Amino acid sequence: MTDISTLGEFGLIKHLTKNVKLHNTQTIKGIGDDAAVLNLKEKHTVITTDLLTEGVHFDLSYVPLMHLGYKAVVVNLSDVYAMNAKPLQITVSIAVSNRFTLEAIDEIYKGINLACENYNVDLVGGDTTSSVSGLIISITAIGIANKEDIVYRSGAKINDLICVSGDLGAAYAGLQLLEREKHVYEATPEFQPELDGYEYILQRQLKPEARKDIIELLSKNNIAPTSMIDVSDGVSSEILHICDKSNCGSVIYEDKLPIANQTRDFAKELLIDPTTFALNGGEDYELLFTISQNNYEKASKIPEITIIGHITEVEKSSSLIARDGTEVRLQAQGWNALKG
Amino acid sequence: MTDISTLGEFGLIKHLTKNVKLHNTQTIKGIGDDAAVLNLKEKHTVITTDLLTEGVHFDLSYVPLMHLGYKAVVVNLSDVYAMNAKPLQITVSIAVSNRFTLEAIDEIYKGINLACENYNVDLVGGDTTSSVSGLIISITAIGIANKEDIVYRSGAKINDLICVSGDLGAAYAGLQLLEREKHVYEATPEFQPELDGYEYILQRQLKPEARKDIIELLSKNNIAPTSMIDVSDGVSSEILHICDKSNCGSVIYEDKLPIANQTRDFAKELLIDPTTFALNGGEDYELLFTISQNNYEKASKIPEITIIGHITEVEKSSSLIARDGTEVRLQAQGWNALKG
Repeated sequence: MTDISTLGEFGLIKHLTKNVKLHNTQTIKGIGDDAAVLNLKEKHTVITTDLLTEGVHFDLSYVPLMHLGYKAVVVNLSDVYAMNAKPLQITVSIAVSNRFTLEAIDEIYKGINLACENYNVDLVGGDTTSSVSGLIISITAIGIANKEDIVYRSGAKINDLICVSGDLGAAYAGLQLLEREKHVYEATPEFQPELDGYEYILQRQLKPEARKDIIELLSKNNIAPTSMIDVSDGVSSEILHICDKSNCGSVIYEDKLPIANQTRDFAKELLIDPTTFALNGGEDYELLFTISQNNYEKASKIPEITIIGHITEVEKSSSLIARDGTEVRLQAQGWNALKG
Repeated sequence: MTDISTLGEFGLIKHLTKNVKLHNTQTIKGIGDDAAVLNLKEKHTVITTDLLTEGVHFDLSYVPLMHLGYKAVVVNLSDVYAMNAKPLQITVSIAVSNRFTLEAIDEIYKGINLACENYNVDLVGGDTTSSVSGLIISITAIGIANKEDIVYRSGAKINDLICVSGDLGAAYAGLQLLEREKHVYEATPEFQPELDGYEYILQRQLKPEARKDIIELLSKNNIAPTSMIDVSDGVSSEILHICDKSNCGSVIYEDKLPIANQTRDFAKELLIDPTTFALNGGEDYELLFTISQNNYEKASKIPEITIIGHITEVEKSSSLIARDGTEVRLQAQGWNALKG
C-alpha cells in the first residue's frame, strides 16, 4: 500500500491522469493546464474546477464565511484568466454538516454572489448537500476566448521575458499572521488579535482578486503572452510548470521580485527572508506570464507588471540569481494540500 | 437561527438561488433544470454538476470504490441526457482523508475511466486534494445539443402522455437489501450476506447506467419529448418538478408503473408495497418525459418505454389512480440528502 502523501499533489495527479484517453474532436486540451479547452464552434470554451475542504484549505476560526464564498469563486476565475479567457459562468456545489445554520450558508452565498457581480459571471448550477463533517465547496468555471488568443503554459520561448503582475508573498504572509494570532488567542483568550498595520496582507489572504485587469491591460497594449499561469502554489512552482510544459529553463532575479512593504515587515518580524514568502507563498492569484523581448518597452511601461527574469535553454535548469550574485536552483516548495 | 433540515433540499436550493442574477446573453438557462444551457454559438452547451460525500451518498462498507467512481460519472451524464443532449466532457474533483491509499483512489478512477470509455466522454480536468475526514467526489459534465433539440422540464402540455424508461424502484430496493445485510453482518459477522437472486436490484444500486439508449431511440423514432427529467429522487418527486415548471397537473396509474420482478419480490419480503419503492425510491436514473398524444403509437411500440399517465390542467393537482380506482394525491417523498 502506498501512502498518498509520499507522491505529493502533482505526483498524484500525474499518476491518476496517465491513463486518461480523449475521445472527442471537441476536446482541444484536457488535463494539464489551468483549464481545459473545448472547441464548441467559433469561440473556444474553457472550463476549470476547484474543490475546497474545511480544515485543509480554510480555517473557519478566522475566515469569515462571506470571504470564503468570494475567494472560492475568485480562485476559479483566476484559472480562466490564466488562459487569457473571459469567465462567463460558474457552478457551485456545497456540502455542509448539520452544525451549519442556514444563515451561515447564506453568508457563503453572499460572497459567491458578490464575486459573480464584480466579475460579471453567471452562477448557472450546482448541488447542495450534507456532509458528515465539515464544509466542502466545489466550483467549476467556464469561459470563452478566441482560439488564437488562448495562452497555454507550453508556449514560452528562449529569451522570452518572465513577467508577474502585482506583488508576491502577501497572501502567505497574511495566513501566517492569522495563524499566529489564532495561537495567541487560544493561549490567552483575553488578548485581542493585533492586526493593525497589516490590512493589506490580510486582505490578500482573505479576499483575493483575480487579475481581470491584467488580461485587459495586455490586450489594450497589444501584448500577447507566449505562456501564462496563475500563481496559486507560489511563483517558484509556477515557473517550473511553465518550464516543464514549454521545455525550457529560466532565470529570475531576487532583486526584481515585487514584494509589498507589509509583506517585508511581517517577514522581518518572523525573522524569515521575504524572498521565501515571495517564491514559495501560495494563493497570490497573480498572473505569471512570458512575453517576447519585442514587447519589453510596452510591458515596462505598465506599472502593474514586473519583469523578473527570462527564459533560457532547456539544458540550463531554473535558477534564482540572489542579491549577492550567487545562483540558487529554483525548487517547487509550493503549498501541498495533500500533506494535511 | 434556522436549522437547514427544516427547509429540505429543494427549499434550501430555492432559498439560496432566489437572488441569483444572470449577466451574460450566453446564459440561456441557469439554475432550475437538470443542467444549465449556454449558447456558445451554433451548438448549445449544457453543464451539470454533482457532489457526493461519504456517509451521506454512499457507504464504503458495501460500495466497491470502482463502482462508486463509475456511478459518480453516470449520475452526471444522466442529467445531460435528461436535457436531450450528448455528454462530451467531465471534470472530476476528489478529496480524500489520509486513511485512503493510492490503490483505493486508483479503484475510484478505474470506475471513472470505465464510465468515460463506455459513454465516450472525455475527462478534461479536476482537482485532487485532501479532506479532514471522508471521501468527497465532485463531478461536472458538459454536453452539447442543437438549440431546437434541448428538452426542458417546462415544456409539458395538457393531455401529453407521461412516459418512463426501464423500471422503477429497483435501485432503492438494492439499497435496502445492502443496508439489511450490513446490519445482519454487524450483529453476526460469521454470517455471509445473502444476495443470491437479487443481482438485478444490486446492480441497479451499485452500477447504474444513464439512458443514452433512450435518447437515441427517441431520436431514431422521431419522437421529440415535450419535457424531460431524470429519475434521481423518485418518480413522484420528478413528476411534481415537471408539473411545477410546466404549470400543469398530472395523473399516473399505479397498474402502469414498471416494476421489475426482483423489486416486487424484495418489497414483499420487507412487507412494503412495491408501489412505494417505484414512486419514492431514488437513484433509478431512468428518464421521465412527456410526449404529444400524436406520438402514442410510435412510443407504445418501444419496449423500453412505458406510458404511465398523462398531463392535466393546472387546477387539478398531481395524483395517482390506485389499482382499486381510488385517487391518491402525489407527494414528493424523495430522497433528502440534507436530513443526514
